[in-house]
Amino acid sequence: MIVNRRIGVYILLRESLRSLLALFAWDLLVVILFQLFHQEWMEQPALPISLIGSALVLFMNVRNNAAYSRWWEGRSLWGMVTNNCRSFGRQAGTLLNNRPDLACAMAAYAHSLRGSLGDIDVSADVRRLLPEKIEKRIRGISNQPNAILYEIGVEVNAEVARQNIDGAVHGQIDRILSDMANAQGGLERIRKTPLAIQFSGLPRFLTICFCLVLPLSMVQSLGWITPLGSSLVGFLFVALDKIGHDLEEPFRNNTAHTLPMKAMAITIEIDLLQPLGLPAPPPLQPEGGVLI
Amino acid sequence: MIVNRRIGVYILLRESLRSLLALFAWDLLVVILFQLFHQEWMEQPALPISLIGSALVLFMNVRNNAAYSRWWEGRSLWGMVTNNCRSFGRQAGTLLNNRPDLACAMAAYAHSLRGSLGDIDVSADVRRLLPEKIEKRIRGISNQPNAILYEIGVEVNAEVARQNIDGAVHGQIDRILSDMANAQGGLERIRKTPLAIQFSGLPRFLTICFCLVLPLSMVQSLGWITPLGSSLVGFLFVALDKIGHDLEEPFRNNTAHTLPMKAMAITIEIDLLQPLGLPAPPPLQPEGGVLI
Amino acid sequence: MIVNRRIGVYILLRESLRSLLALFAWDLLVVILFQLFHQEWMEQPALPISLIGSALVLFMNVRNNAAYSRWWEGRSLWGMVTNNCRSFGRQAGTLLNNRPDLACAMAAYAHSLRGSLGDIDVSADVRRLLPEKIEKRIRGISNQPNAILYEIGVEVNAEVARQNIDGAVHGQIDRILSDMANAQGGLERIRKTPLAIQFSGLPRFLTICFCLVLPLSMVQSLGWITPLGSSLVGFLFVALDKIGHDLEEPFRNNTAHTLPMKAMAITIEIDLLQPLGLPAPPPLQPEGGVLI
Amino acid sequence: MIVNRRIGVYILLRESLRSLLALFAWDLLVVILFQLFHQEWMEQPALPISLIGSALVLFMNVRNNAAYSRWWEGRSLWGMVTNNCRSFGRQAGTLLNNRPDLACAMAAYAHSLRGSLGDIDVSADVRRLLPEKIEKRIRGISNQPNAILYEIGVEVNAEVARQNIDGAVHGQIDRILSDMANAQGGLERIRKTPLAIQFSGLPRFLTICFCLVLPLSMVQSLGWITPLGSSLVGFLFVALDKIGHDLEEPFRNNTAHTLPMKAMAITIEIDLLQPLGLPAPPPLQPEGGVLI
Amino acid sequence: MIVNRRIGVYILLRESLRSLLALFAWDLLVVILFQLFHQEWMEQPALPISLIGSALVLFMNVRNNAAYSRWWEGRSLWGMVTNNCRSFGRQAGTLLNNRPDLACAMAAYAHSLRGSLGDIDVSADVRRLLPEKIEKRIRGISNQPNAILYEIGVEVNAEVARQNIDGAVHGQIDRILSDMANAQGGLERIRKTPLAIQFSGLPRFLTICFCLVLPLSMVQSLGWITPLGSSLVGFLFVALDKIGHDLEEPFRNNTAHTLPMKAMAITIEIDLLQPLGLPAPPPLQPEGGVLI
Repeated sequence: MIVNRRIGVYILLRESLRSLLALFAWDLLVVILFQLFHQEWMEQPALPISLIGSALVLFMNVRNNAAYSRWWEGRSLWGMVTNNCRSFGRQAGTLLNNRPDLACAMAAYAHSLRGSLGDIDVSADVRRLLPEKIEKRIRGISNQPNAILYEIGVEVNAEVARQNIDGAVHGQIDRILSDMANAQGGLERIRKTPLAIQFSGLPRFLTICFCLVLPLSMVQSLGWITPLGSSLVGFLFVALDKIGHDLEEPFRNNTAHTLPMKAMAITIEIDLLQPLGLPAPPPLQPEGGVLI
Repeated sequence: MIVNRRIGVYILLRESLRSLLALFAWDLLVVILFQLFHQEWMEQPALPISLIGSALVLFMNVRNNAAYSRWWEGRSLWGMVTNNCRSFGRQAGTLLNNRPDLACAMAAYAHSLRGSLGDIDVSADVRRLLPEKIEKRIRGISNQPNAILYEIGVEVNAEVARQNIDGAVHGQIDRILSDMANAQGGLERIRKTPLAIQFSGLPRFLTICFCLVLPLSMVQSLGWITPLGSSLVGFLFVALDKIGHDLEEPFRNNTAHTLPMKAMAITIEIDLLQPLGLPAPPPLQPEGGVLI
Repeated sequence: MIVNRRIGVYILLRESLRSLLALFAWDLLVVILFQLFHQEWMEQPALPISLIGSALVLFMNVRNNAAYSRWWEGRSLWGMVTNNCRSFGRQAGTLLNNRPDLACAMAAYAHSLRGSLGDIDVSADVRRLLPEKIEKRIRGISNQPNAILYEIGVEVNAEVARQNIDGAVHGQIDRILSDMANAQGGLERIRKTPLAIQFSGLPRFLTICFCLVLPLSMVQSLGWITPLGSSLVGFLFVALDKIGHDLEEPFRNNTAHTLPMKAMAITIEIDLLQPLGLPAPPPLQPEGGVLI
Repeated sequence: MIVNRRIGVYILLRESLRSLLALFAWDLLVVILFQLFHQEWMEQPALPISLIGSALVLFMNVRNNAAYSRWWEGRSLWGMVTNNCRSFGRQAGTLLNNRPDLACAMAAYAHSLRGSLGDIDVSADVRRLLPEKIEKRIRGISNQPNAILYEIGVEVNAEVARQNIDGAVHGQIDRILSDMANAQGGLERIRKTPLAIQFSGLPRFLTICFCLVLPLSMVQSLGWITPLGSSLVGFLFVALDKIGHDLEEPFRNNTAHTLPMKAMAITIEIDLLQPLGLPAPPPLQPEGGVLI
Repeated sequence: MIVNRRIGVYILLRESLRSLLALFAWDLLVVILFQLFHQEWMEQPALPISLIGSALVLFMNVRNNAAYSRWWEGRSLWGMVTNNCRSFGRQAGTLLNNRPDLACAMAAYAHSLRGSLGDIDVSADVRRLLPEKIEKRIRGISNQPNAILYEIGVEVNAEVARQNIDGAVHGQIDRILSDMANAQGGLERIRKTPLAIQFSGLPRFLTICFCLVLPLSMVQSLGWITPLGSSLVGFLFVALDKIGHDLEEPFRNNTAHTLPMKAMAITIEIDLLQPLGLPAPPPLQPEGGVLI
């Protein structure tokens, strides 16, 4: 995720450069064919370019809204993971009368979750934090974070039986685990369900059509200045299309627009371990304006 | 549900082909009548086509927003079913001290639910998973998934009485069952309440009117090129109309845009059975870019 | 509620017919006065009709969005009533160890609620289902459904005391009753608070102004074809205005757009009575494409 | 709140009259200066009035959406107060084994809340309902409704101790009190946080600028008819601005658009007192189409 | 936060002054070059400025909507902190049988939270309210408010054990602490996750491009009046851009648009201390129309 605005605008422009050049090349081709080779069939000033443009912008706004909602929902669900981890940490330290191993297991859960969402190898972090007995029991299970959560539930259950803790208190801990399962399920929902293809595939196709037709409608009146005017308009549409594309997959792991899942997992680790007096890693710092 | 973007755009274009051809044929007819047979009453350049077009796009965006919300709400509610199934699995394994038959019954519930939402025959999956005694008791009841949930509640109640489990713990399990009933009710609400007819029927009617009038307003200025310009604009409107149509019924079972309920039910089955050490089917794979 | 799309579009057109005819008559009058009697002061081509039109469409979309949200919120709250009724049925059958009379009272509650929301006489349905002792106690109270819920709470309380049921279990039942009170309160909120007058009254007034002015701005350029062009645009605006009007009161009981409260109450009755083995009515079928 | 649509439109028009007259006067001045005194520098047909107008309408729609959301959220939170009052009434009558004084105190709470939100003197209603011992204890506290809620909590606590009521049942009552605190907090949030100044102050300023410039861009082509055309457009913008202004403060106590807090508080009183057999006032009736 | 509308508009205009002057200077330069030095290549009336403008406004509305949602969500989450503080105060006074030190600790928590969100030094307020033994235990922990919440949980746990309070009651208090953790987590989410760079950085860049091109498209037809027309349009776009910029960071501590966190924390303090009879500070008053 980009955290520095100035660097961010620069990154955005750099990412758009290729589209911008392709656009400019096509606009140039049109104006050269028209002005030098008199391909006059190319001029189509009567094309309802303004109507098409407005329709396209309106549609892309709906799409970008949906994409941004996915991105922000992803962030909010990670926030819920954070909150529930903290609450579980408080419960492990108070209601369960100090079980630091379970707080560590919960920190491992956060790392395991970011691994499964972003297809990242997190085995080092998980091994560092997860108690060995739990680690053994979850081998071979396909949904690793869910398995960790299940085993934490098993441990809590055993502890409750051992200490003879009140059922209502047990119920409150179980509620946090259920809330955690809800947050995880929400994250997996966003991960596994791409934005409806009508919203993710169609805008790009329509943008390309629009940018191809655009200079034809301007070349007669703008003449040699066509590439500038046409590229300016085209860039606006390419930028709008790019927004949705960047935001629609908040966990895709190779862009500057991915949610900073590593930083969030480390924050969770710090918040879980520090109150128990355990050593915690320092928070992750952004590199080149981007936090991962 | 389409999970591959490239294939997805291809599917969308293929589905739009028929409308596009009809549109093109009409545009061609208009231009031929106008250019060859001089039916000059056909030219209506003063028609406020831009105002009508903008109004229609704005309205369709509102509609598409509503349709997409239904689709995403449907997906989110299935996510809630998944989450509650997992939480129930954890509770069956811990709070109830291991009742694998109830976890299986919950997996059967997920299949039964997808059957009732999509009008699909799921008796094989349900029979495979549902304990026989429950299966007997629910025969003849019209709402099968609700009946399974009811019987799971009966079993939990008996187990609680047998093991003398604390009321607060029982309360937490009952809460998960109530949350499940809420998610199921939400899914049935979307299934049984079509998008308001004003949003589902009117846009198509208005789009057809608009596409019929469109070439009349262009034929004078665009001449022989009318079919291209008119079809381009017309296609944009047909595509916008199609979006709402595709997304408004997320459980309709014969299109590429239906939610992948089978894949989700199998995921639930895996998440319920694996932690208990029971054999689970492999996850469903997409075929031709489409997950069912 | 219209459940058949084809019939639905037909109903919508039939309902709009009167407005359409009035519109056409006015357009005709304008063109006749202008063409035959040369009332040339009538032509006002410079009127910023496009700006007014766009502004009006944008405003009506905001309004229609709000009206649709009301309609959908009403439907969702009825869904919550359904869900809570099912959960209460499950609790009456399990936690309370079989109290079919309370399940019947809850079904009566659903009918009483639809009566109070839609100003319909439902005394037959309520009398058929409500236990006599409750029916006596609620006579003369103004908010009948709330009184039934109160009495169900009293019965549950007595049953809990009689069977010495655990407090936490009692708490779970009370939570369902509170959730039901929330759903009922939400429904009454929509019923008693009309859409803000700025959104419900103003658009119609502005639409009428707009349609009166519309032909004046077209008559010069469109000539004898004015009524067609003007009516097409006018119909679009009338349709947009009608959408909001149809959806803003989801419980108004004399249109095809009302929520099918009777069908929903009967569904609730079936879901409550069937698992207990009691006889239940068949589900309500749509008549002429409309479900009531 | 306006509950009669016909009267409502009339009220809206009456409230807009002054703006409309000012607008008309300015338009008249422009046309007179232009037509009679030939101040030709006044004609500015090339002003991009359509672009400015569209931008302004779009912005005002965003604003009006936000204002309407505040209004509706305020109404929904009052709905939550109603629901929780009813649930508390049910609990006071069942779980606490009949404590009519607490139900009365809760009705006093509703009146006290409307007093503090609307800066209205409600001491008569509060004194009529609030038990004297609570009334004494809350004297001098700045947030009166919160103090009443606190004292109800104290009373519930004492009653629980006296009757030795189960902790889980006590927990359910406490949950209702917490939900009530949430609803009250939400209402105070809307009351104390005006709509962001960018949304509440800027639109009016921009509308005035726009209306001043508007006739200048029309006077050349519309001539003597300018005041009509310009006032029609201007009125649309003034109406849009007025909507946001009317709705943004749902508790402002001197307009016809305020939420009917008195009527709602009396409804709460009826719903709390009737089931206990206590005398309750009749529901408030609208006067002149307006409910207060 | 600006609480006085008249002063607010003045502040907004003052903040926009610099942009407005820069805009005017550029417009003046263009008109002088064109009119006096006949740089006729500067006139570009055929530029599709209206299409670009509409697209930009639509995009900025989407962005401003997102920014306003962040601002309002921030305010709502602070409201939740207030509500939960009040509920905790009620619980500390009733369920825990009077623990004023914990109510004070909770007030310190509110101050600590505003300090960590706004990067403000709040040590004086925290030291004034936080019991010394808690203050010692949280030294050196990076997330101070979370540590205070943790220690409050520890104290509650000890008190429950000492007084032998029922588990369900303990559960209700723990639920309030979990809700508080959720609210805090939400606030930190908004604080740490800037609005997506596409929404925060791109609009300013596009606005600048647009304002540079704007006078070129007008200078031919507007002549010497260009700076006025162009600045009017430009100001509208600058104002729209400013809205998003002002609202996107609700906790940034040096503007008039920041949420009044100090005032809210003091309100919390009053609501916590007054019912216990402890001395409380007076509420904070706005200075120059701005509340901090």
